[in-house]
Amino acid sequence: MTTTSPDIDLAELIADTEGEIVRLVQDRDPSTHGLYEMVRYHLALDGSGASGGKRMRPLLGLLAYASIAGEHRRALPGAAAVELGHNFSLVHDDIEDGDVERRHRPTLWAVHGVPQAINTGDTLFSLSRIALHRLSDLGFSDRTVLRLMRLFDETCLALCEGQYLDIAMSTSDDLMSVDTYFDMIGRKTAALIAASIQAGAMLATEDDEVIARYRSFGWALGLAFQLNDDLLGIWGPEQTTGKEPSDVANRKKTLPVIYAWERATAPDRDRLAALFGATERSPADVEEIVAILERTGAREYTRDQARFYRDEALGELDAAGVVRPEVRARLEQIIVSVIAA
Amino acid sequence: MTTTSPDIDLAELIADTEGEIVRLVQDRDPSTHGLYEMVRYHLALDGSGASGGKRMRPLLGLLAYASIAGEHRRALPGAAAVELGHNFSLVHDDIEDGDVERRHRPTLWAVHGVPQAINTGDTLFSLSRIALHRLSDLGFSDRTVLRLMRLFDETCLALCEGQYLDIAMSTSDDLMSVDTYFDMIGRKTAALIAASIQAGAMLATEDDEVIARYRSFGWALGLAFQLNDDLLGIWGPEQTTGKEPSDVANRKKTLPVIYAWERATAPDRDRLAALFGATERSPADVEEIVAILERTGAREYTRDQARFYRDEALGELDAAGVVRPEVRARLEQIIVSVIAA
Repeated sequence: MTTTSPDIDLAELIADTEGEIVRLVQDRDPSTHGLYEMVRYHLALDGSGASGGKRMRPLLGLLAYASIAGEHRRALPGAAAVELGHNFSLVHDDIEDGDVERRHRPTLWAVHGVPQAINTGDTLFSLSRIALHRLSDLGFSDRTVLRLMRLFDETCLALCEGQYLDIAMSTSDDLMSVDTYFDMIGRKTAALIAASIQAGAMLATEDDEVIARYRSFGWALGLAFQLNDDLLGIWGPEQTTGKEPSDVANRKKTLPVIYAWERATAPDRDRLAALFGATERSPADVEEIVAILERTGAREYTRDQARFYRDEALGELDAAGVVRPEVRARLEQIIVSVIAA
Repeated sequence: MTTTSPDIDLAELIADTEGEIVRLVQDRDPSTHGLYEMVRYHLALDGSGASGGKRMRPLLGLLAYASIAGEHRRALPGAAAVELGHNFSLVHDDIEDGDVERRHRPTLWAVHGVPQAINTGDTLFSLSRIALHRLSDLGFSDRTVLRLMRLFDETCLALCEGQYLDIAMSTSDDLMSVDTYFDMIGRKTAALIAASIQAGAMLATEDDEVIARYRSFGWALGLAFQLNDDLLGIWGPEQTTGKEPSDVANRKKTLPVIYAWERATAPDRDRLAALFGATERSPADVEEIVAILERTGAREYTRDQARFYRDEALGELDAAGVVRPEVRARLEQIIVSVIAA
């Protein structure tokens, strides 16, 4: 095990993760070339130079591992598994939500149709499991690899449960409660970020108390990321997000809307129901909804919650008591840069 | 380990498999009740009394295990994993093929829409992995459980590759070749049946030569089953299949069609292309296609191939040299009853 230099190079971690994934998504034979080409297209590993996203989940997992072990390379199979699993869910989410664009490119189903896109998502799911087996080649014990697999299996189930709740709520006439919303984003967003970070810790130590602290760190961080996204989706400056805030126009039921629905006066609540019930919302409608949200204090509430979970996350990390200072600095830097709240 | 009675009760094996699955698909909390209800509906484990299919894959796996070990119960987690994995692929296949009915009931997507059905398929995929972890509770070594998981992961990838080929060929104007067809059904059908039987053997013995024989047995059997289905889809008597043979009307490119396409005279080939190219086929068109298939010898060829693989399967089983006679009798009974060829 090598020791890390004080200055951790995030670009190197991302390049190494992509290298690990590239090996897995190569053609296996000529007849299925088209399948792996779709896999590589979605992952933006097709040589097009398109962006494959921030690779935040593998990055956090590698940093969690390096924060204890002092190097990141032995954790790469776990990082690849997390990123492939995340992308399996994105391919299916894009179909389920009818989204035609992701990361400035047409979504997979928009190019190749729903049948091939469903199946390519399933392929990414299978590849995410195959990624983990390389941990055995790297000398991790069968017990450790099996524990990681159990964590991944339970996390995938949680993702599906969260997605079930999300679809059920978005197609229901009722707005959900704040409690249900936290339940949903816990499964849909926090579970995978927590699992990625927990997996990093599990590969670095057998100390269950430390592992539990890292998991709590990841869970709180996942909630904070989602709440920050909720804020940016309504009040984000276009230069930060790269797109106009569109959650209200698309009637996405994020925390500010649900909180306002619970707290609004009777007339405001009726207006919210009418505006969200309509098929389309004009710019004036959007402005009216945002005004109602602000009147109920939904913006402050969401911002306070995002800050609360961000601070809780860093507190859990420090409580673990094993974090190398140079890695902690990198983690805090990522967190602060992503969470604008 | 108990010894089995000479008379193996297939109904008991099926009931035990369903009992193992029922434990896995219970509600986990009130908020996701609707998700597990969809899972149970598709599996016909919803108390409706509907048929959940023949449960052929878990049955073969349990018999493979029992044929060496003399009892079946310790292999139940593997049987549950195979059946859940098979059903994950059915839920997605039904969407991809646009099929609105399965086993005399509306398909999941026809009842709950495509988004929830995709996600319920993903849930079945996750549950199939979780099923395997109970092998550890039953005392199997970490090494054995991990070997089984690798087999399942590689099998799921093969299923996706087979499905990719199937969709690509069915949406292409070209008819595929006989070689490509065998490649496709190998991945799509034979791989899972082979894996189920191989998994049964892997749980019963560490002898790699015996395990390889069981795998070859399963692979040949899977091909034989598919070719038998191809025959029944065109020439099957309605009383055998429970439905009118409809593969030609639905322009499914099964082996008889592909073989005929390769062998037909130029005029017959032109007629085939014209009739398959049309959006719909009248009863007279179907009759004309079937006549062309028979002229080329496609029926005999497919029947001979089905028989060849059926006999090869039983030969591999016997070559393993460890099969208890009472279980072999049951296996042969299933094979002969399913393969009418």
